[in-house]
Amino acid sequence: MHGADLTLLTDFYQLTMMQGYYHLNSRDQIVVFDLFYRVNPHGSSFSIAAGLEQAISYIENINFKEDDIEYLKQQKIFSDNFLDYLRTFKFTGNIYSVPEGTVVFPNEPILKVVAPLCEAQLIETALLNIINHQSLIATKAARVKWAAGNDTVLEFGLRRAQGPDAGNLGARAAVIGGCSATSNVLAAKWFDIPAKGTHAHSWVMSFSDELTSFRKYAELYPMNCLLLVDTYDTLKSGVPNAIKVFQELKDKGIKPAFYGIRLDSGDLSYLSKKARIMLDEAGFEDAVISASSDLDEYLIRDLKLQGAKITLWGVGTNLITSKGNPSFGGVYKLSAKYDGEKFIPKMKISENPEKITNPGNKKIIRVYNKRSGKIKADLIALNHEEIDESKPLVLFDPKATWKHMKLQPGTYYTRELLVPIFIDGKCVYDTPSTFSIKEYCEKELSTLWSESRRLMNPQNVYVDLSHELFTLKESMIKQYRNEQ
Amino acid sequence: MHGADLTLLTDFYQLTMMQGYYHLNSRDQIVVFDLFYRVNPHGSSFSIAAGLEQAISYIENINFKEDDIEYLKQQKIFSDNFLDYLRTFKFTGNIYSVPEGTVVFPNEPILKVVAPLCEAQLIETALLNIINHQSLIATKAARVKWAAGNDTVLEFGLRRAQGPDAGNLGARAAVIGGCSATSNVLAAKWFDIPAKGTHAHSWVMSFSDELTSFRKYAELYPMNCLLLVDTYDTLKSGVPNAIKVFQELKDKGIKPAFYGIRLDSGDLSYLSKKARIMLDEAGFEDAVISASSDLDEYLIRDLKLQGAKITLWGVGTNLITSKGNPSFGGVYKLSAKYDGEKFIPKMKISENPEKITNPGNKKIIRVYNKRSGKIKADLIALNHEEIDESKPLVLFDPKATWKHMKLQPGTYYTRELLVPIFIDGKCVYDTPSTFSIKEYCEKELSTLWSESRRLMNPQNVYVDLSHELFTLKESMIKQYRNEQ
Repeated sequence: MHGADLTLLTDFYQLTMMQGYYHLNSRDQIVVFDLFYRVNPHGSSFSIAAGLEQAISYIENINFKEDDIEYLKQQKIFSDNFLDYLRTFKFTGNIYSVPEGTVVFPNEPILKVVAPLCEAQLIETALLNIINHQSLIATKAARVKWAAGNDTVLEFGLRRAQGPDAGNLGARAAVIGGCSATSNVLAAKWFDIPAKGTHAHSWVMSFSDELTSFRKYAELYPMNCLLLVDTYDTLKSGVPNAIKVFQELKDKGIKPAFYGIRLDSGDLSYLSKKARIMLDEAGFEDAVISASSDLDEYLIRDLKLQGAKITLWGVGTNLITSKGNPSFGGVYKLSAKYDGEKFIPKMKISENPEKITNPGNKKIIRVYNKRSGKIKADLIALNHEEIDESKPLVLFDPKATWKHMKLQPGTYYTRELLVPIFIDGKCVYDTPSTFSIKEYCEKELSTLWSESRRLMNPQNVYVDLSHELFTLKESMIKQYRNEQ
Repeated sequence: MHGADLTLLTDFYQLTMMQGYYHLNSRDQIVVFDLFYRVNPHGSSFSIAAGLEQAISYIENINFKEDDIEYLKQQKIFSDNFLDYLRTFKFTGNIYSVPEGTVVFPNEPILKVVAPLCEAQLIETALLNIINHQSLIATKAARVKWAAGNDTVLEFGLRRAQGPDAGNLGARAAVIGGCSATSNVLAAKWFDIPAKGTHAHSWVMSFSDELTSFRKYAELYPMNCLLLVDTYDTLKSGVPNAIKVFQELKDKGIKPAFYGIRLDSGDLSYLSKKARIMLDEAGFEDAVISASSDLDEYLIRDLKLQGAKITLWGVGTNLITSKGNPSFGGVYKLSAKYDGEKFIPKMKISENPEKITNPGNKKIIRVYNKRSGKIKADLIALNHEEIDESKPLVLFDPKATWKHMKLQPGTYYTRELLVPIFIDGKCVYDTPSTFSIKEYCEKELSTLWSESRRLMNPQNVYVDLSHELFTLKESMIKQYRNEQ
């Protein structure tokens, strides 16, 4: 999507609704839309927000060109006046968002649009597309990296990604969530992240035999010599041939900066242990053993528990597609309308209690334990609410209000998560580099208790409503019920 | 990816290998690479090949620009000579492929590259990325459409797609596989497919009440009036209000070309039956009931078995991400090297029998039953082999060679699936329109027996090796074993 014109990247119904608002003179009605999600992917207790940089670029480049207008005209449903309005359409509103790499939880407005109705409506689909995708992959990457511990994880999934953008933007999100590098050269160039990779089976097969292929590779790349050892037979042929070549380098007095083997099939636990012994016995204790065969967070964790001697993990398909949970359920819901003086809260009532939205113009206040720096809870509050940290803070569970806790002054501190991105249509936010976002994300992850990070049945972090928001929501539900 | 420069959309190791071939003077060695896959997604008995149009565009636009060269130079691993070679790099080889929309089976070379080694290597990753993605979504769409029978299926997944390309190219593939239209305006414009959609919950919520929102919508779009009825309460509020508005249109003498309701939550079976009765009793027997709530092929089939009164299906997340199986396992393997006179077969030996590749420069011959026009079997054969249809044809199972059948002349006919796409680097193929591909795909699907189309445990179609290819493969395995 780098530089692509995504103005029409929207659902058709956004345009039919926009034309409706335009003709009903409500196009400039200021409204609030919340972008939030209801369930973390993969049974995680948290997600990592990502995609803001591309969302900003999308909004800044909205521009209905003549051929877009012509295309819409051909649909025979849009009036000339409305199409004229689109000709000069620009986003003029405000957007607030959590920074990329932030740890977030269900039901929080991780991005908030305060803008004229027509504008807020147009951008819904692309915002969701971009943020859903990258948040999904960043979250998966954080899980994979957690399983790998201090080992390095590389993103290797381009060939199985769902199209070029999924490969490129997915690589970016994977680095934000915890990967150190990618195999994808275009993503590496665009996002200034290291590109990694050595050779494939086809290299080995293009020579008369494996040993020759390794020798040639080592001659060409003596300083960075990771040999793929499973083309024919890993332990009988691949590893012995690799050792021969490492010995030949040694005999020539060459000390590679980085060398070792890559396993891409078979029983990675068994093969890595056997290979480690063979390499060590030959005097190559510093040779790296890497692996890249249908890995995910569960398999990596299991291999580590089995004592596999792998310290470098190339993760492909399962990360880049977020296999097992290939979508992030972000939604975009109207929460308030501005009446010229104040925001009138709006909410979607549903038979399904989880689908009832939180009304009003809101913000997220994160409450930390002062001693540990860990997250105590998040508080969704109305925008005008302020926390006085010199007073006790009462938190309660909105689903079970009898469960509450009182935090004494001095034991906690708070931080507001939403920061201004666009004000009056102008971007006021400097996007950090991908690696800065990655570092920020690492700090964010360190604010979670380890009980909340484990892969299975993690402890959920409390997301509470402020007392004022809770009361507002209850009263609106009651009012709706009474009107029935 | 429309018009995007994807030259660097490749794995880093392709470039390190290419430099190797360049310096070892094997860059112009003519080789054959097969693109094939081993397992159909979702337990299907077949897949639909898709993505060729974008693959062609990618190859035609390969062009290392100065900033690409500069970027690679900064990696401090590529020689000036090699970078100079890249400056004028062009694809000069041949590519053969099955047409998009073709029904394909595991292990068949659905695309074949016959080209200088360096060129064949560079394009591996992008070819796999593009073809894996679109084949995945087209296959999923064919399943969803099969479940929907004669009903219409719309692609609604843009907001949950894995990035913009996944939304756009996914919509294209979904139409190829069976969808009639998409909600995605950009994809609709690019690929000349209908864009569909009416309004969202936010439309309803932006008015003081549901009835007003429906009235306003019907005033604006009287000819195409599909009302979303589940914002508050489907049966108590949504459907009665929709009926009021349809009655008001009728009273004004307006006869919509298309009208009805959309269900987006709740028990779709129950709600659709109740809504059908309410609409029919009010005299709106021709009002359409559509649905769009986390649908997939299994749910649609189940709803139809329950007698749900839905005839228009909007399928989002589960189709656009191919949930349950979000990757298509296409691989790209060296199968032959040209020695100046003939193709010398190459194969990857593996401990895992499924991973042993088919050697040689090959083609796919499809064998049809003459009377029914249904597929009898596919035959993977060496490129020089010809079928003489005036003689009996013996087919046998390569995994169980005692299982064989003899087809008598006059009972069968054959067709070669691979057609030339590039010859000497020049595209010789006219890509059909997306809707032509969709029509071709429908015909292709009609050549499968219904036993092979069912969603669960379908009958697999035979993919056999020609006797000559089988013998070659056996002898190569034997030779490899003897060398051990």
